[in-house]
Amino acid sequence: MRLRNKPWAKDKIEEHSQYIVANPENSKGNWHKVFEKDQPLHIEVGTGKGRFITEMARANPEINYMGIELYDSVIVAALDRLIEADLPNLKLLNVNAADLGKYFAKNDVDRVYLNFSDPWPKIRHEKRRLTYKDFLKLYEDIMVDGGEIHFKTDNQGLFEYSLMSFSEYGLLLKYLSLDFHKSGYEGNIMTEYEEKFSEKGNRIYRCEVKYQN
Amino acid sequence: MRLRNKPWAKDKIEEHSQYIVANPENSKGNWHKVFEKDQPLHIEVGTGKGRFITEMARANPEINYMGIELYDSVIVAALDRLIEADLPNLKLLNVNAADLGKYFAKNDVDRVYLNFSDPWPKIRHEKRRLTYKDFLKLYEDIMVDGGEIHFKTDNQGLFEYSLMSFSEYGLLLKYLSLDFHKSGYEGNIMTEYEEKFSEKGNRIYRCEVKYQN
Repeated sequence: MRLRNKPWAKDKIEEHSQYIVANPENSKGNWHKVFEKDQPLHIEVGTGKGRFITEMARANPEINYMGIELYDSVIVAALDRLIEADLPNLKLLNVNAADLGKYFAKNDVDRVYLNFSDPWPKIRHEKRRLTYKDFLKLYEDIMVDGGEIHFKTDNQGLFEYSLMSFSEYGLLLKYLSLDFHKSGYEGNIMTEYEEKFSEKGNRIYRCEVKYQN
Repeated sequence: MRLRNKPWAKDKIEEHSQYIVANPENSKGNWHKVFEKDQPLHIEVGTGKGRFITEMARANPEINYMGIELYDSVIVAALDRLIEADLPNLKLLNVNAADLGKYFAKNDVDRVYLNFSDPWPKIRHEKRRLTYKDFLKLYEDIMVDGGEIHFKTDNQGLFEYSLMSFSEYGLLLKYLSLDFHKSGYEGNIMTEYEEKFSEKGNRIYRCEVKYQN
């Protein structure tokens, strides 16, 4: 994602702590208190401008959603969307994915969404890919037993890598589509990237994997 | 594959028992005696007209190869190829894949190749797919510990199904390409189907999976 410097972003984030959770370490193990209802929590790691997570929250009021995004200048776009949508089951979190373990305890999360994650194609950057084994361990440590990762991307190399990484980690491949937009799947909510890349003719790849605790 | 009735095929097969092994049940546990050298055995299940297995045998004299094909009218084409190539490390077997356990014992086989297997797209025919769990068990029962299946196809549905079936069975996904002919892999030997379908612009999918005994 192209990042523009937005010096006002930090202030805006702090002003909207009802949407972008401040001091998230205080909610570790108690995330249901941050939401109106105590119900399953699905997080999107790398939520970008927030279209996917907002539309998911709107479509599924029986689930709590949290969009996690590191970059100030990006999360403010998601914030605008959330202010407008004003959904009781959606929050944002402005933290680094590598620090998830600081903010979430085992069983806090029921599902992880990864959408169009940065492919980090160079092998020396493998550890930064959100499907690298250390991240799979992080997700496991904050999810319920049998928790799932739902992953989509148009990046062939990242998808190939990720399926191998999931297998190596012992995750069960429950669902797989190698051309998702032609798969007949109903109710797909597109991310901003997904719309852009599929309009360019790129295939979208999608899978669901499950921890076998 | 389109099957033409070839009434003379049975006779031809019997006449060439130095190439198409007769009474294979007698070699169970002793396949190295059928070949000139006692070396690893790789089998192709559904060998069709035999181009892949013949060229593999020519390229890798340190491996014994066996092409397994059920249909008389198809295996005779592979036989013609084998007569011409006259390789000491290649044999054919005219049996049903479902009966592999009758002819091979544990540790007889080091690797299984599946190339452009019949997709059997109807769900009621799932059990006929060569990557259905019962077949994965069959291969396991005749292979060495840590044996591998190398699989390629242009059929997206079969490939998706197979990756899920491998995962469910507990196989490790070691190698994956979702566009094999653009992957930079060197030394690929194309099957007849592979050449035909890739010329039509179809993607070729390929993976290698390993039993984790």
